[in-house]
Amino acid sequence: MVVNNKVDSLSYDVEAPPQGAAATAPPPAPAPARHHAPAPPAVREGAAVLELHKVSLPERRSTARALRQRLAEVFFPDDPLHQFKNQSSARRLVLALQYFFPIFQWGSAYSPRLLRSDLVAGLTIASLAIPQGISYAKLANLPPIIGLYSSFVPPLIYSLLGSSRDLAVGPVSIASLVMGSMLREAVSPDEEPILYLQLAFTSTFFAGVFQASLGFLRLGFIVDFLSKATLTGFMGGAAIIVSLQQLKGLLGIVHFTSHMGFVDVMRSVFKRHDEWEWQTITMGTAFLAILLLTRQISARNPKLFWISAGAPLTSVIISTILSFIWKSHSISVIGILPRGVNPPSANMLTFSGSYVALTIKTGIMTGILSLTEGIAVGRTFASINNYQVDGNKEMMAIGIMNMAGSCASCYVTTGSFSRSAVNYSAGCKTAVSNIVMAAAVLVTLLFLMPLFHYTPNVILSAIIITAVVGLIDVRGAAKLWKVDKLDFLACMAAFLGVLLVSVQMGLAIAVGISLFKILLQVTRPNMVVKGIIPGTQSYRSVVQYREAVRVPSFLIVGVESAIYFSNSMYLVERVMRFLRDEDERALKSNQSSIRCVVLDMSAVAAIDTSGLDALSELKKVLEKRNIELVLANPVGSVAERMFNSAVGELFGSDRLFFSVAEAVAAGAGKAQP
Amino acid sequence: MVVNNKVDSLSYDVEAPPQGAAATAPPPAPAPARHHAPAPPAVREGAAVLELHKVSLPERRSTARALRQRLAEVFFPDDPLHQFKNQSSARRLVLALQYFFPIFQWGSAYSPRLLRSDLVAGLTIASLAIPQGISYAKLANLPPIIGLYSSFVPPLIYSLLGSSRDLAVGPVSIASLVMGSMLREAVSPDEEPILYLQLAFTSTFFAGVFQASLGFLRLGFIVDFLSKATLTGFMGGAAIIVSLQQLKGLLGIVHFTSHMGFVDVMRSVFKRHDEWEWQTITMGTAFLAILLLTRQISARNPKLFWISAGAPLTSVIISTILSFIWKSHSISVIGILPRGVNPPSANMLTFSGSYVALTIKTGIMTGILSLTEGIAVGRTFASINNYQVDGNKEMMAIGIMNMAGSCASCYVTTGSFSRSAVNYSAGCKTAVSNIVMAAAVLVTLLFLMPLFHYTPNVILSAIIITAVVGLIDVRGAAKLWKVDKLDFLACMAAFLGVLLVSVQMGLAIAVGISLFKILLQVTRPNMVVKGIIPGTQSYRSVVQYREAVRVPSFLIVGVESAIYFSNSMYLVERVMRFLRDEDERALKSNQSSIRCVVLDMSAVAAIDTSGLDALSELKKVLEKRNIELVLANPVGSVAERMFNSAVGELFGSDRLFFSVAEAVAAGAGKAQP
Repeated sequence: MVVNNKVDSLSYDVEAPPQGAAATAPPPAPAPARHHAPAPPAVREGAAVLELHKVSLPERRSTARALRQRLAEVFFPDDPLHQFKNQSSARRLVLALQYFFPIFQWGSAYSPRLLRSDLVAGLTIASLAIPQGISYAKLANLPPIIGLYSSFVPPLIYSLLGSSRDLAVGPVSIASLVMGSMLREAVSPDEEPILYLQLAFTSTFFAGVFQASLGFLRLGFIVDFLSKATLTGFMGGAAIIVSLQQLKGLLGIVHFTSHMGFVDVMRSVFKRHDEWEWQTITMGTAFLAILLLTRQISARNPKLFWISAGAPLTSVIISTILSFIWKSHSISVIGILPRGVNPPSANMLTFSGSYVALTIKTGIMTGILSLTEGIAVGRTFASINNYQVDGNKEMMAIGIMNMAGSCASCYVTTGSFSRSAVNYSAGCKTAVSNIVMAAAVLVTLLFLMPLFHYTPNVILSAIIITAVVGLIDVRGAAKLWKVDKLDFLACMAAFLGVLLVSVQMGLAIAVGISLFKILLQVTRPNMVVKGIIPGTQSYRSVVQYREAVRVPSFLIVGVESAIYFSNSMYLVERVMRFLRDEDERALKSNQSSIRCVVLDMSAVAAIDTSGLDALSELKKVLEKRNIELVLANPVGSVAERMFNSAVGELFGSDRLFFSVAEAVAAGAGKAQP
Repeated sequence: MVVNNKVDSLSYDVEAPPQGAAATAPPPAPAPARHHAPAPPAVREGAAVLELHKVSLPERRSTARALRQRLAEVFFPDDPLHQFKNQSSARRLVLALQYFFPIFQWGSAYSPRLLRSDLVAGLTIASLAIPQGISYAKLANLPPIIGLYSSFVPPLIYSLLGSSRDLAVGPVSIASLVMGSMLREAVSPDEEPILYLQLAFTSTFFAGVFQASLGFLRLGFIVDFLSKATLTGFMGGAAIIVSLQQLKGLLGIVHFTSHMGFVDVMRSVFKRHDEWEWQTITMGTAFLAILLLTRQISARNPKLFWISAGAPLTSVIISTILSFIWKSHSISVIGILPRGVNPPSANMLTFSGSYVALTIKTGIMTGILSLTEGIAVGRTFASINNYQVDGNKEMMAIGIMNMAGSCASCYVTTGSFSRSAVNYSAGCKTAVSNIVMAAAVLVTLLFLMPLFHYTPNVILSAIIITAVVGLIDVRGAAKLWKVDKLDFLACMAAFLGVLLVSVQMGLAIAVGISLFKILLQVTRPNMVVKGIIPGTQSYRSVVQYREAVRVPSFLIVGVESAIYFSNSMYLVERVMRFLRDEDERALKSNQSSIRCVVLDMSAVAAIDTSGLDALSELKKVLEKRNIELVLANPVGSVAERMFNSAVGELFGSDRLFFSVAEAVAAGAGKAQP
């Protein structure tokens, strides 16, 4: 272990004995002797064993280098080039290939044993993906066949590019809902089906471009701005909106509102009670009950996951048979579906005309939502199975998958939570399970489409409700309430915003509250009065540690936030208020009044120009009251900035200390000439 | 001094010897002995003298109480009720009266000596306020007389309500410019002068309502979101825009563009070169040169402030006389101004119709800008003269002043920087100087209006340019570049946004960048590897302190930010990256690999649910690699949250330490059974 003991030439010269000087070094030379209060025993004891240390600056870097390091930290926190270091160029090529196509990484070690697992998992998720695909397409107001197309091409692409082993790719409920609600505001899917389809594919293309760009530009952290709390609320609200939409199918209502809001839907349901269709209701309720029951069984006993996984397809088969036998005209059925694989749809993408803004907006919204779901699902299962998922690379994979999908009659797809969970439970090992699923969908598309003719629409509604019910996380919301009231508020705002106003508004409210919370913390930072913990050299908040003892005639304030323009005025005001309170307390207990304020800067991660000005201001205000201001333990970037500005000189000579303990000790030392 | 030594019943039971136990207490009971690496001498030495301390929680508060304290800190950081404590009710009434009408505070001690000073100052600022008032009104596309009206009523109201002694109230350039540019986009002041006037008064009313509400709702901190850096850029850009607008007057151009952008104006100037009027240009250039010269003289020698203070009025008088003698038709003059005091204008406020949204928007924009200027000016001079200005109270005063003004034919007013500086230099003592100024304006309105008939418009342009030139703060921008590149970027973005796009856009860009900077710091927080400083128990960043020594087989990471949803994923990734790098370094130097990660939480001011999840996640990931994760020194609110959630149990028993030193010592202790 190399101990670097040489004095840093860049460190600022606090008037202090050099490193390693005897502990009994004379107190710092000519400094105004302002502190006359005797130090408490613990501190004087401390002073006796303390030697003063310097506040160092980090190595001086050029502006360009500092900027490069800063940008690297923002955009490449995962340091993707690290593995390429010190490798031969052939090896680098292989690594690069493996980086962009993870299939080359796990493909070489693929074995029949893995294939068997993937085969089982792939067929299991296919049995779920087929009915869900048809249902979700209806949620987006698209023809059911689009849902199957979207369960065929995207999984194949993902299996080449994706780095998650467990992700099951296909259409998902939330993105389908948002796309459906945003596009229907402008174009009716019933009156202009071709235009609607064009907009859907174009939105999907933009979603893909947006997702891939986020990944390529390393802006993955934008996804992190959707906090878990807001997502909980948003998902819950969206799940209820989706379920309410299914009342149309469940009740057999023909003339249903095209609005999404809770109030509109409920009004429509009760206004149209003459259209309620009892055969449909009976069938729907029965199957819904069965599906929910199987869901419960699998939730209680994870080994029985296949019960809930197989239930949707089983329900579809049974209900189709029933409907075929009855041939009742009152139960609405899917009808004729075209046989064959995805037709190309690149010619349907439209980048001009009056709908461009709408498709871009829809693309961004559905893109970010599906990305959030896909990344979260990927990370969840990666963490369970102890491997890493590269967020930015995943974004590129999902983005390219959607761009390609939009040219092959697919709409927005991503990793689905419910199907990925089944995939995991069924024992998938690699992305091959996606290929197996795609193959099963291919067989369906080629040969089994006529079988869906008599499938009742009501069964699709029941499947959707069963799928989205799991998104309502009451326990999660309760936990938020317990741990963090503001997070709970954000959650409820998102929930109610989605439910009562609109899906987009709910999302906007949620993001707004999340950001406001961050800003609030920076605007009104925690500031605490610190005292010494007896028997240590540590200073801690007197509110948190009751045993902490205030040092007479010192006010030690810890600032627990970066000092920015948004809190610099508050900082000054807060210190003055502490000073007033502490002086009142000193007066009451006949102690000497405050003569020195020590700002503990340990927790100040950054400072800007306004913050520096605030420090000078505070110093000036305190000086007028004959109180000294000293700083303790500024971190590297803060110290650097101080010395780049006039503030460094202001505090330089004898007002900058290595630690609070040394600041107090030095103050006490001055009192003994 | 009361030493509270009893064990806090709320503190979590870290398995540690009780307070004051012998240093040789047996190591914590059955815990997996994971650390087998020998501690470095300094640490083992440390362990010998260390006793373990508990991490305490702050006193448990009810949800309602915690919320109340939180809200009090957000909205009442100045604790305005403090002075009312322990007072008789009569005294409280007097204090309340003094609180709302500061005139009762200083009025009783007012003396003839103070009056003499205020008289001189008031007359001096009046000589500046009259020409500036006329000029600024023209900047807002309003009749010149409105500028004088606005220099009469608002100062009187402010003198009753305001708490600043030095603020000189009246119209200001930036707010005038913004109001002019926003209203002119919708309504032409030449074609529909009455409607334009109605919109101006209504906007002023809304500005007042907005300002007073901010003060009343204690939302003053919103003003703090306009950082100094962005304001520097914004002011500079606005000053150039304003100066460019004056080219119309200076060059005598009649058909001038109604746009504000740099490009539009320059194009208009050169396209209309046939309209350039040489008599006007000569006169304008001459007076501009003189005014700028006097400004320079006063800037060099502050005692000669009266030279620049008196120059505008002198220029107006001389140029009016010249223009009266010449009676040249080519020099455009102000023309007839109505005699008499402010007519009431409450009937002109319109709260319905298609322009409501515009007036509200204009009101908010001009309101926040004038508030920012007024508060900043008030604080500047309060700091020079060592008294306090209450931001929220000032906002109410300025707001009420504008609401009243809008009913008395005034447009937006606030404390002007240039006139307040003159006021201060001229030796004003109280707000009476505003009353004196208002009286002088009154005399002008009643008797002197005909004298302005022949005042050339070009002289007003010269006065405006001279006034706004001081807003271009090149030295301030240079300082930003030196200290903080990102602040400089925000400054330049605001500057160029105002100059090239629009005033509103410039402001939006500036605020956006300021907020983005805060969010970025929270998204990519500083994280540092710490080592022990030889001879101390202190751990510091190894990048900042070159003498800091890493503790073998320990990775000590300091997190310098709150842990929020926006950085929780990054935190995990960053720790894993540190781990990889440190392991590589250990491998190279044949040291033992990392067995324990210590997260130093001292600088983590807050944590949200995502952050708590990230800690559990990190612990799980590290455990899979047989590395232990322990936390050191969580602050009160963070500790509280941890114990309210499952994370507390996860880290509770023996993974939570009072300080990094104790965490390291305990780890070393376990290695010696």
